[in-house]
Amino acid sequence: MSGLFITLEGGDGAGKSTQVELLQAWLEARGHEVVRTREPGGTMLGVELRKLLLHGEHVDPRAEALLYAADRAQHIATIVRPALERGAIVVQDRYIDSSLAYQGAGRVLDIADVRRLSDWATEGLQPRVTAILDIAPQDAAARRHARGGAADRLESEAATFHEAVRDGFLAIAAADPDRCVVIDATLPVDEVHAQILARVTPHLPQ
Amino acid sequence: MSGLFITLEGGDGAGKSTQVELLQAWLEARGHEVVRTREPGGTMLGVELRKLLLHGEHVDPRAEALLYAADRAQHIATIVRPALERGAIVVQDRYIDSSLAYQGAGRVLDIADVRRLSDWATEGLQPRVTAILDIAPQDAAARRHARGGAADRLESEAATFHEAVRDGFLAIAAADPDRCVVIDATLPVDEVHAQILARVTPHLPQ
Repeated sequence: MSGLFITLEGGDGAGKSTQVELLQAWLEARGHEVVRTREPGGTMLGVELRKLLLHGEHVDPRAEALLYAADRAQHIATIVRPALERGAIVVQDRYIDSSLAYQGAGRVLDIADVRRLSDWATEGLQPRVTAILDIAPQDAAARRHARGGAADRLESEAATFHEAVRDGFLAIAAADPDRCVVIDATLPVDEVHAQILARVTPHLPQ
Repeated sequence: MSGLFITLEGGDGAGKSTQVELLQAWLEARGHEVVRTREPGGTMLGVELRKLLLHGEHVDPRAEALLYAADRAQHIATIVRPALERGAIVVQDRYIDSSLAYQGAGRVLDIADVRRLSDWATEGLQPRVTAILDIAPQDAAARRHARGGAADRLESEAATFHEAVRDGFLAIAAADPDRCVVIDATLPVDEVHAQILARVTPHLPQ
């Protein structure tokens, strides 16, 4: 495949959406075809599955993991692979690393099982570059609050969970330094953007 | 688990629905609690997934297999296991053997993968008794036609597929004779029912 697959990962409030937009604009200004996408919900099937998961009956943890894997299989097969095959750059908000970090923090399912499901769903498709935007959960919460969102004081249970998610992302990055770069998400937006570009540019076509 | 898990398998037109009804009536007449169920579609989530699969956009084969596995996980976790745990008899129309026989005939996915997905979805739950209602595809088609259904002459491609499904069921039965019994579905309804009972009764409580 001649394209380039880039993912952005990190907890809520780390600034992924902003950085995805900046990266897309920068790449498009240089003439690259960019496909910007996200999980879950990047396909029609994904949108329907998301509705089911959020508004339907209680879903068993294994059924939930299988539904997310189905969404991922459909998304990769119908959006991401075709784009990469025609040489486009795919910039994706969340992928397998999010599944692993969140499931690992929840500790309901075996992480090795979740990884096997995702690998099977995607036929092993890995990003070339993954930028992990790292921020302490209390800083992310303060940032959302400053933005005028509802004051979402993290109670201790949630704080422990989000710390575990963060640790999960850092462990993934440490295990795969060739693919992953950890970026301090409390830095100014332009500085985070520059650090992402520093990692992406060596992989751009010509 | 103190209950008894029975599945009926076989191609379309083999008479599974009729036999499930007869078996349920026989068991209930002897005072057993019977939970009669089916796949796909035994739960609210399953009904919604079935709608998606039948009426939505084109679904990638891996996504489809994952959706069926999700339906199965939900069905086993919320209907079948609770019933077995309280000592009920579960009579189910289609289970893992159908997934294996149909996927094997379609040859899109690796059968070992499909089995692994199902085993993970169900935490390895196996029926104690599986009755495989065996009928040649042309006989099943003739039976549907005689019943007043649309004249569905099987064209050769479909015939080859249904022969492969049948061979798949027979191979499953040959590999697991302790669990599976193959019954000639062209026999009179009462005779098929009697053969199912002969296999089921040794496993009934007291």
